[in-house]
Amino acid sequence: MKKNFLLTPGPTPVPAEALLAMARPTIHHRTPAFKAIFKEMNENLKYLFQTKNDIFTFAGSGTSAMEAAAVNLLSPSDKAICVQGGKFGERWTEICRAYQVKVITIDVAWGQAVNPKQIEKELQNNKDVKAVFTTQCETSTGVLTDIEAIAKMMKSKDAVLVTDAVSSLGGVDLQTDNWGVDVVVSGSQKGLMIPPGLAFCSVSKKAWKLVEQSKSPRYYLDFRLAKKALDKSDTAFTPAVTLCIGLNETLNMIKQMTLPVIFEHNRRLARAVRAAVKAIGLELFAQNPADVVTSVYAPQGIDTAQLVKIMRDEYGVSIAGGQGDFKGKIFRIAQMGYMNEFDIIVGISCLEMVLKRMGYEFELGNGLSAAEKELLR
Amino acid sequence: MKKNFLLTPGPTPVPAEALLAMARPTIHHRTPAFKAIFKEMNENLKYLFQTKNDIFTFAGSGTSAMEAAAVNLLSPSDKAICVQGGKFGERWTEICRAYQVKVITIDVAWGQAVNPKQIEKELQNNKDVKAVFTTQCETSTGVLTDIEAIAKMMKSKDAVLVTDAVSSLGGVDLQTDNWGVDVVVSGSQKGLMIPPGLAFCSVSKKAWKLVEQSKSPRYYLDFRLAKKALDKSDTAFTPAVTLCIGLNETLNMIKQMTLPVIFEHNRRLARAVRAAVKAIGLELFAQNPADVVTSVYAPQGIDTAQLVKIMRDEYGVSIAGGQGDFKGKIFRIAQMGYMNEFDIIVGISCLEMVLKRMGYEFELGNGLSAAEKELLR
Repeated sequence: MKKNFLLTPGPTPVPAEALLAMARPTIHHRTPAFKAIFKEMNENLKYLFQTKNDIFTFAGSGTSAMEAAAVNLLSPSDKAICVQGGKFGERWTEICRAYQVKVITIDVAWGQAVNPKQIEKELQNNKDVKAVFTTQCETSTGVLTDIEAIAKMMKSKDAVLVTDAVSSLGGVDLQTDNWGVDVVVSGSQKGLMIPPGLAFCSVSKKAWKLVEQSKSPRYYLDFRLAKKALDKSDTAFTPAVTLCIGLNETLNMIKQMTLPVIFEHNRRLARAVRAAVKAIGLELFAQNPADVVTSVYAPQGIDTAQLVKIMRDEYGVSIAGGQGDFKGKIFRIAQMGYMNEFDIIVGISCLEMVLKRMGYEFELGNGLSAAEKELLR
Repeated sequence: MKKNFLLTPGPTPVPAEALLAMARPTIHHRTPAFKAIFKEMNENLKYLFQTKNDIFTFAGSGTSAMEAAAVNLLSPSDKAICVQGGKFGERWTEICRAYQVKVITIDVAWGQAVNPKQIEKELQNNKDVKAVFTTQCETSTGVLTDIEAIAKMMKSKDAVLVTDAVSSLGGVDLQTDNWGVDVVVSGSQKGLMIPPGLAFCSVSKKAWKLVEQSKSPRYYLDFRLAKKALDKSDTAFTPAVTLCIGLNETLNMIKQMTLPVIFEHNRRLARAVRAAVKAIGLELFAQNPADVVTSVYAPQGIDTAQLVKIMRDEYGVSIAGGQGDFKGKIFRIAQMGYMNEFDIIVGISCLEMVLKRMGYEFELGNGLSAAEKELLR
């Protein structure tokens, strides 16, 4: 009888329509029936990614698409810039180094966003850099990076811009073509509203030149094999059939609601969460917070691992703790995908009750009324 | 209102129990709830693989696990033997070559099985071979390779034995530990009875030494990262949560039915299909047929692409055509996973009716009665 509420920054709740679509009897992937769905899914993905570029879909976690971007663009000893302002920025560096890419890291303090000028400076000092790896929403910190500004600055450069949009796509604006983002990487379990298991890469014409030059070994994640198949509305290897079917359902919902409305919806929820935690007397962690996840410093003496555990085990409300150096020190509440006002109200209510139980002093209900005020604006 | 019957050699029908388990609200993967399921799933996989070795689970197609085996065991310019007797044997060669491995191919005519002596000879001529890549059931031909004999022959050799058991695991016997198969690769959408999207590798101690030595670049598929996580009943990257939950359901079913009973069940179905097609006057394609898929030469003048299309589009019965040089010339009917006597009866009945419509001369019902006779034995 326990009711569970998923307010983690991925996986996010899956609409019943998608769950039930995925529960239909399995179909074979080399059939007109699947091909029709896959074709529609790919068109819908283009709407979501705001691009005319090819988008390759892999059965895999988001990390597989990050690796796909690195190995298809770069050869061993090629130079790349990786912006590291959290766990997922660091992952770009780890992947590139695993493939012998020479990485110039730009280290950004957790909780802060990179200044595009820092990237520009490194590009000027290193004219041979082939790719810049960035993270639009750094899930581990809740920070939004200004990809539009970076893309603008990079328009005149040779290097391609790669953006990890795993937790931001479909949640905050990312104008792949208008801004000029060469490769956008994403995953299925956040703004896309289905379970984890699908990974995506959109690839621009400029990036495709690097794909043809790359000498890095690859097979399963080879964009060349993926493109050959995609041109026939097919996949190089067996696709995750049910996840594709579920995704097409949620993409149709996104298209119907339209991206601008969704972005505004998330912004409104994020404002409500921020207002609520401030009203409880807490401090936001991210300096440039993304509208899809809000990261908050815990009060002095409160371990967020414990906070998360009590909220989940005793109340069924899942939020996330901190990662890396901020384990135990911050907590994160998501506003992405299939969430509305009352998910936020539930999350804040549970947070208030558990903080009170853990001994933090504040007026019960302050967070909730601040959230409501913000939601009514 | 159309009823569909999936008799393809993957994906195979998914039991409603698993479909509904996967349709439950998504849970987060770093929680005690998921960890408990994942732990049980891993224990169940050990039963299925008949091994005490670690089994790594990736979000990916079967091919990703094949690639994982190659990159974790071998460095560039290492030598390997790849047995090629069909599309999936050839895939071993393609993957190894993509990673600069020096491949000695053993070419086996499609429809035939490799003689273990051929492998032994190559191993004697090439003492520095580090790995032998084989395919237990070559899905493209329906041929079963005698992995037990190959393993026995290789016991005294330095090279490790790698077996692609994507379409055979849980369908025909594969005694990983008793026979001594170092790496077994599989996927979720065949004998394991869930949709595509999970890939597996079991790794022996002997193989682990190569993993530590391998200089091939890898990240997402790195066994070292996978092992570090698995030791804590965790995954290195976000797992395909719902597929793992579905898999645990089907593995519990398999455990309850027991492997010997399932192998005998498949054998019985395979005998019925073979008897039926012979009674229709058709010839089997595979010389050493696997009990999970039956491959059959089409009658003169009948294009199997057309046969498959009519069976599927007009009757809802999906079987597979031929691949490579045998496209249009053979067809394949699966007996794997969640199939019983009446799936076979339906498949044979549809085959009879469509062959008759396509102008092939035979006595209607001959196939069905031969199948029933075999099923009653």
